[in-house]
Amino acid sequence: MSSSDIFIGETIGTAILILLGGGVCAAVTLKASKARNAGWLAIAFGWGFAVMTAVYTTAPLSGAHLNPAVTLALAIKDGDWKNVPLYWGGQLLGAMIGATLVWAAYYGQFHAHLTDREIVGGPGAQDTAKATEAREAAAGPVLGIFSTGPEIRNVVQNLATEVIGTVVLILAVLTQGLNDNGNGLGTLGALITAFVVVSIGLSLGGPTGYAINPARDLGPRIVHALLPLPDKGGSDWGYAWIPVVGPLLGGAIGAGIYNIAFA
Amino acid sequence: MSSSDIFIGETIGTAILILLGGGVCAAVTLKASKARNAGWLAIAFGWGFAVMTAVYTTAPLSGAHLNPAVTLALAIKDGDWKNVPLYWGGQLLGAMIGATLVWAAYYGQFHAHLTDREIVGGPGAQDTAKATEAREAAAGPVLGIFSTGPEIRNVVQNLATEVIGTVVLILAVLTQGLNDNGNGLGTLGALITAFVVVSIGLSLGGPTGYAINPARDLGPRIVHALLPLPDKGGSDWGYAWIPVVGPLLGGAIGAGIYNIAFA
Amino acid sequence: MSSSDIFIGETIGTAILILLGGGVCAAVTLKASKARNAGWLAIAFGWGFAVMTAVYTTAPLSGAHLNPAVTLALAIKDGDWKNVPLYWGGQLLGAMIGATLVWAAYYGQFHAHLTDREIVGGPGAQDTAKATEAREAAAGPVLGIFSTGPEIRNVVQNLATEVIGTVVLILAVLTQGLNDNGNGLGTLGALITAFVVVSIGLSLGGPTGYAINPARDLGPRIVHALLPLPDKGGSDWGYAWIPVVGPLLGGAIGAGIYNIAFA
Amino acid sequence: MSSSDIFIGETIGTAILILLGGGVCAAVTLKASKARNAGWLAIAFGWGFAVMTAVYTTAPLSGAHLNPAVTLALAIKDGDWKNVPLYWGGQLLGAMIGATLVWAAYYGQFHAHLTDREIVGGPGAQDTAKATEAREAAAGPVLGIFSTGPEIRNVVQNLATEVIGTVVLILAVLTQGLNDNGNGLGTLGALITAFVVVSIGLSLGGPTGYAINPARDLGPRIVHALLPLPDKGGSDWGYAWIPVVGPLLGGAIGAGIYNIAFA
Repeated sequence: MSSSDIFIGETIGTAILILLGGGVCAAVTLKASKARNAGWLAIAFGWGFAVMTAVYTTAPLSGAHLNPAVTLALAIKDGDWKNVPLYWGGQLLGAMIGATLVWAAYYGQFHAHLTDREIVGGPGAQDTAKATEAREAAAGPVLGIFSTGPEIRNVVQNLATEVIGTVVLILAVLTQGLNDNGNGLGTLGALITAFVVVSIGLSLGGPTGYAINPARDLGPRIVHALLPLPDKGGSDWGYAWIPVVGPLLGGAIGAGIYNIAFA
Repeated sequence: MSSSDIFIGETIGTAILILLGGGVCAAVTLKASKARNAGWLAIAFGWGFAVMTAVYTTAPLSGAHLNPAVTLALAIKDGDWKNVPLYWGGQLLGAMIGATLVWAAYYGQFHAHLTDREIVGGPGAQDTAKATEAREAAAGPVLGIFSTGPEIRNVVQNLATEVIGTVVLILAVLTQGLNDNGNGLGTLGALITAFVVVSIGLSLGGPTGYAINPARDLGPRIVHALLPLPDKGGSDWGYAWIPVVGPLLGGAIGAGIYNIAFA
Repeated sequence: MSSSDIFIGETIGTAILILLGGGVCAAVTLKASKARNAGWLAIAFGWGFAVMTAVYTTAPLSGAHLNPAVTLALAIKDGDWKNVPLYWGGQLLGAMIGATLVWAAYYGQFHAHLTDREIVGGPGAQDTAKATEAREAAAGPVLGIFSTGPEIRNVVQNLATEVIGTVVLILAVLTQGLNDNGNGLGTLGALITAFVVVSIGLSLGGPTGYAINPARDLGPRIVHALLPLPDKGGSDWGYAWIPVVGPLLGGAIGAGIYNIAFA
Repeated sequence: MSSSDIFIGETIGTAILILLGGGVCAAVTLKASKARNAGWLAIAFGWGFAVMTAVYTTAPLSGAHLNPAVTLALAIKDGDWKNVPLYWGGQLLGAMIGATLVWAAYYGQFHAHLTDREIVGGPGAQDTAKATEAREAAAGPVLGIFSTGPEIRNVVQNLATEVIGTVVLILAVLTQGLNDNGNGLGTLGALITAFVVVSIGLSLGGPTGYAINPARDLGPRIVHALLPLPDKGGSDWGYAWIPVVGPLLGGAIGAGIYNIAFA
């Protein structure tokens, strides 16, 4: 693969991943969405099929890591670190593009949700003290469309949950080479990976919302901080390091287990 | 493929697609349906498996585009426009047949839903002012069984959402050639495409109901306008151009991205 | 295939199909079941995976028709009627065994549901007028665990819905030969067939509960009539011919469409 | 396969299986979990994809039995008992590791659930008589995160349900050799097995919670007995033999049916 294929593939792929993954969070959370309150099973399948769509589409270009923890684990496994910065750069850029596209696709929904106004009015509609109050009460869940957050804030447990989930993902991804006889990720591998991600979401998503991917959390959090959303609330930067460090630790531990037990 | 295989394949395939896709909307919406209120996850899986069933069944005949935006994107990618009218004609005809079959399969349910009368009575049952009122209150959701509509009416956002969803679909469809080594859509490709459509439904369906296919929206809307349903309400022709133009734009943009980044 | 392989394969396969298909209906319907009220999506996936499990398990023995309408359609397509009685016999016997196994697996649940007594009591617990009344009120949904029934009783529509659903199934089954290059039903074909059945359930199951298989309806209905269930209610024999004739008609029409358009 | 590959593969594989399977039970049951009350469909898919992830990951090492009943059935089928103790040992150890990891990943959730205290407080928060009472009322469902239990306690029916479910699983697993032409479990077989387990969960899980695997029930029950969880309640050892004996019986019966009808 050429450097430009890697960068373009990871950028497009992570953009698709976050567009569809952030999209299902928006769909289930926001007012005036047809999928509102569709539940956790919809979230888990939504993220799983987001991974499948993104991997399937961009595997021919870059191998579709789409996750800095996967890139790290493959570098440890293969002892080849040359393209790591290229992969990581594409992933972070793609995640930011994807989160911006979620905002574009749900533009009216975000504003209806945050302002709690009648949708009839346009930019000129008058703003009152009561509307401001209602907006502030409604604000909060919107960050959850962009980034993950813990139900119970506990550094050790939150890190542990992210590490455990990522190790499961990494072991499944690394054994793909043993199962597929070099046929590549493209077709069936993308499907298996999708259901592994659904599995992690259903089973290990309860405590922290399963980032298991640093770019998936950091990219959209930056976009949340930058977007001109009214009353959007803070971006919870105090938690931001956990869904970055936890998955990277999980990637390294997963690669270590693979090298000891499977290689 | 012969011209007749293309036309017959697209007609049968799009009829199956709309029968099963419109069917799940009827199943979840109408009174006296066992699946009533089965929720958005049922809608998303219903449309996804509708695509899978239709693609799998008719791929050997016509390649199973079943979507004018897919036909447009493939024409742009391959530079071959010869069969476009044939594909588009079959798709629109098939969509109209499919929508009519939904009405046949849910005949009693449509009438029970719209008239709000006791089901015991037949054509001779008497009609009162109260029944008329109740019917008018109930009318409205029935158009949603045939065509899509926005939760928030905003031309720019509605178009953008349809464009974004269609680009995701088109990129996944076009890379199939790269992933499947020419084995064709038939088996595994149909499954992947199904889950791509589930993904788009879960993640990008919230604002507009994800037409992402001009024939899927226009054909059933024409049938809605023609069918002798009592108190069916209007067919919302003012919105009808968006789920035609948006997906076609998305098809062209998707093919452009493919030609630049993947070819 | 030998005659005994065909008969044994169809008997075991249809027994598994009805055990798992009737099982999900019991699981969702009966009191004291962990899956109670799991909803229509659970029903649709339950029947789809029942088909997959049964087809996958018995395809190597008999080709896994497991449905008299499929056997009929294949006989019309291939012009070979020799083994039809053998297939049909195995299918009906298997369906009856499967329905009996559902009763065994949910024995306590059936009795708790129908008698509405505290589960603490055993055979010696006393019966009162009030308990009898409550039992009679509760009776009714139990037939739905065995056989299908219409939401709105209308011979023409009920037949039409069963015909339409079966044609969709038959076209997908018959094109398998075109898609799989003779690799057989076993692996991927079983998965595709499963999701076709999920699709029909989600989209066309609303009006009649989608028998689309004469053995699936008739075998369990016979078992319902024979089982010593207290207050089980009638077996609705007046409706019983529709889920037999409708799917057979659908099988013939599906094979006809296939022979004209696909062969 | 070497002895160490078998032991390591079964240990890692069963650990992943129970981590993800017990994880979905924790996710759906515990307070302060984002997936709380996600329903039976989430449970069934969660366990199915847990099987898929574990089988896919460890099939290249040990063949991924991950279930003493599968090991027994394969030993009967092949007449080769040499490695049975090694498989069983790895499976039981893995199940205990997996259950411990569930506790680690949901540490705060377990304690919030069992103590019913405001989550704000830490170890120093004061304990009152009312809090103790509330904890005792809440205690109970926590055993269900580790092991199975019957809705209606009836030795004959509970055993029968476990036997029936396991026979369905074993027949599907044993025919894999007939379907996959020796391509092994790895890729598609893992997916089929996943959906077989989803099917058993949806259809036969209602009465006993479908252990269908002695290690899946016994390992986590031992961990439940050992873990320092406050007010965790008893481990129901009176029932513990049923989900061990039932699945082993099912494995033997399934292998017998296979040897008679399929071999």
